[in-house]
Amino acid sequence: MVRSAAQLMRRKGVSGTGMREIVLDADAPRGSLQHYFPGGKEELVGEALLWMGSVAARRTGRHLERLDPRTPSALLTAIVEDWRADLVREEFTAGCPLLAAAADTASTSDHIRRVLVQAFEGWQEPLTAALANLGVPAERAPTLAMLVISAVEGAIVLARIRADLAPLDAVVTELGPVLDASTRPGRPAATT
Amino acid sequence: MVRSAAQLMRRKGVSGTGMREIVLDADAPRGSLQHYFPGGKEELVGEALLWMGSVAARRTGRHLERLDPRTPSALLTAIVEDWRADLVREEFTAGCPLLAAAADTASTSDHIRRVLVQAFEGWQEPLTAALANLGVPAERAPTLAMLVISAVEGAIVLARIRADLAPLDAVVTELGPVLDASTRPGRPAATT
Repeated sequence: MVRSAAQLMRRKGVSGTGMREIVLDADAPRGSLQHYFPGGKEELVGEALLWMGSVAARRTGRHLERLDPRTPSALLTAIVEDWRADLVREEFTAGCPLLAAAADTASTSDHIRRVLVQAFEGWQEPLTAALANLGVPAERAPTLAMLVISAVEGAIVLARIRADLAPLDAVVTELGPVLDASTRPGRPAATT
Repeated sequence: MVRSAAQLMRRKGVSGTGMREIVLDADAPRGSLQHYFPGGKEELVGEALLWMGSVAARRTGRHLERLDPRTPSALLTAIVEDWRADLVREEFTAGCPLLAAAADTASTSDHIRRVLVQAFEGWQEPLTAALANLGVPAERAPTLAMLVISAVEGAIVLARIRADLAPLDAVVTELGPVLDASTRPGRPAATT
């Protein structure tokens, strides 16, 4: 049910996804929802968001292990490649559930807002560590990780409505060199 | 009603905003909705999105006129400053209606998806022209405009859930120098 909730939210947001629909999609017995999620929709949505945040974190760890060449731009390319594959496979019908929940539920549920903070931090922290591991100075790694997440999230939205990958290409083309340049201390990007 | 629809969508998305609520918020007489928008919610939402896209475009034009210094990073700072002011004034309760509609409605309404393409293009085109006007090479201006929109949209989402401006600061700090560097042909960012 957590997986079904996440998948439906990726297409239609939190408000657009009904509980009944989640149970049907998960092929779960009637009543099981109340059994496993006594807190109702808010609890189930929260679980789905934390799960998706952990997926993003695990993907980052896996990319870092296998990276070749071991540069920040190669890591960015790998992260974007996951989204590119998802968008193409799903014909641009689904985006990121964290963004969807932020857009329609963060202002009406403080529980969901707090879960979203946790879920995004669960992605930003390993990404910051990975960038530092690849030579990004420790003081810039958190800022650059935040920028990467912002740019990738925004690009997924644009790609989805345009039904093409150009916005994700723009992130890789323009941000990749910024990340790599940050590893060369003689040329701080802010003054070139 | 168009303004009310846009404001409610900024907080709760399209699915989370009811027609009744829009009419109440707009303090409009019963029946006026059907009179002005015979196409119903889809038509009203479409109008609200096009209106908000045109607001973003007009803001860009106004910033360009008054810009000092006349650099791409100053333009980025001015664009982000608008959002910063909105977020602080509204205590991080509302974001961008285009992004909200993309997240919950682009996959279920092809009319809304097409309106969103138009609304985002209505922002990207003047931004591309403004960047070119400020010295960004014509071949990179569309890509950089797209990246700016992606990064700003994503940063608004992160700022909103964190209830702080750090994600928008990251966009200005890290992307501003990239935009300015692109105007100096001797040092293409991609090879520094």
